[in-house]
Amino acid sequence: MGYTLQQLSDIEEIKLVKHRYFRGIDTAEMALLDPLFTEDVEVEYIGGDYRVALKGRANMIVFLANSFHSGCQAMHHGHMPEITFTGPDNAEAIWQLEDIFINHEKQEHTYGSAIYRDDMVRENGAWKIARTVYDRVMEVVQPLTPGARYTVSRLAEVGLKPDDRRDISHLITWETIE
Amino acid sequence: MGYTLQQLSDIEEIKLVKHRYFRGIDTAEMALLDPLFTEDVEVEYIGGDYRVALKGRANMIVFLANSFHSGCQAMHHGHMPEITFTGPDNAEAIWQLEDIFINHEKQEHTYGSAIYRDDMVRENGAWKIARTVYDRVMEVVQPLTPGARYTVSRLAEVGLKPDDRRDISHLITWETIE
Amino acid sequence: MGYTLQQLSDIEEIKLVKHRYFRGIDTAEMALLDPLFTEDVEVEYIGGDYRVALKGRANMIVFLANSFHSGCQAMHHGHMPEITFTGPDNAEAIWQLEDIFINHEKQEHTYGSAIYRDDMVRENGAWKIARTVYDRVMEVVQPLTPGARYTVSRLAEVGLKPDDRRDISHLITWETIE
Repeated sequence: MGYTLQQLSDIEEIKLVKHRYFRGIDTAEMALLDPLFTEDVEVEYIGGDYRVALKGRANMIVFLANSFHSGCQAMHHGHMPEITFTGPDNAEAIWQLEDIFINHEKQEHTYGSAIYRDDMVRENGAWKIARTVYDRVMEVVQPLTPGARYTVSRLAEVGLKPDDRRDISHLITWETIE
Repeated sequence: MGYTLQQLSDIEEIKLVKHRYFRGIDTAEMALLDPLFTEDVEVEYIGGDYRVALKGRANMIVFLANSFHSGCQAMHHGHMPEITFTGPDNAEAIWQLEDIFINHEKQEHTYGSAIYRDDMVRENGAWKIARTVYDRVMEVVQPLTPGARYTVSRLAEVGLKPDDRRDISHLITWETIE
Repeated sequence: MGYTLQQLSDIEEIKLVKHRYFRGIDTAEMALLDPLFTEDVEVEYIGGDYRVALKGRANMIVFLANSFHSGCQAMHHGHMPEITFTGPDNAEAIWQLEDIFINHEKQEHTYGSAIYRDDMVRENGAWKIARTVYDRVMEVVQPLTPGARYTVSRLAEVGLKPDDRRDISHLITWETIE
């Protein structure tokens, strides 16, 4: 009847992993992100008309560093976790994302929401993301706002500058959905 | 001195009810929403110049299905719960809402925030919403954004199409506030 | 191995303090805000090109009442806490803010995100904010939206009217960052 002390503690630890993930991507803190994934993490993002897939922690870190680069302003906040234990060291977690992503190089402002479904595993006492999938709920892509001043961008300071970025297309499986 | 294990477990269960509620409305999952309410749930929404009231779970489900329809893009995220126990099977919960609601049929984009005050009761071991009231904190209603592309709408796929919608005006008490 | 019952209870109590803080500023409820701070609270806000500092609960309350005034629409939501205990009655808390601040007197709409780092202490059994620092992650300042109707503003009703506001510049240390 209800959660055990161990489960309540695990719920808080699982939340921390995802909270750090979102803080890490918006501030390009790769050292914060690295320990949050299993070595063979599987990643899948489903947008309106595409499906992107990626495997492995090393690839994920390169993918994130090159996606959240110096030309962007980014806010990714994860909300309303629904955590279900599937074993003593396994859980599924649903999260709802709100994101703002202003790409100044493309002059494109994207915002919206998505639902994440993560598989979490405990490895050597630490909860990690073993699989993460997101599926968009709503998305709007618009031009930059006339008259707007883009006054603070943490990524402009700490994100990868153009010369430091790499081509990451070989890391990703890209599929168009009809 | 602090929360008991039972209360901490109940807090997590109460959060789950509201997290599922918000996920359910933005994705029109009526089967997810139905068990979250008591049979005689009372609902009241207070906007700038109106008060809307509604009673009963069956009516609430019809109201939600017809409000979050195929012509909309919707994001409703509930944040920062403040849960106070008023008995072993009773609690009050305050939540803060952020919402985006783009109604393409009316060409109207609404966003803002509100404070929910919910009465929660435990029935046969499951926490349910017995009464839910929201009062707006801020609201903006604007035209659609020039040049915007509305690239993903889950409700366009799963929400009620025009021919499947019903007149719900008889379910609602509507009052104009001076 | 994991959190104790006392720590899980403390985590919930610490969250409540910050949840009330955000509810209190957006609704100008000074009576809700006052008990959330230690008497000698230290406050520091770091924006793109400025650093604002302030000391003491009485000054903080005056500062908040005069900042969240009747000319504004405000949404300040705190997300994704990362709470670390540094003693039985001490903790550090990281929060991620999303904010919307529409100043109708200046005709200026600001939105963005920030990371808070708070020092929390337990005084006479109640957790309080002893130090709070925020550093912007992203910020956009734009004109009001053409065609928008600003339909609800709680602060217009409850915030300080122009004649009731005070000059608060002497409470604040302001520094421009190069």
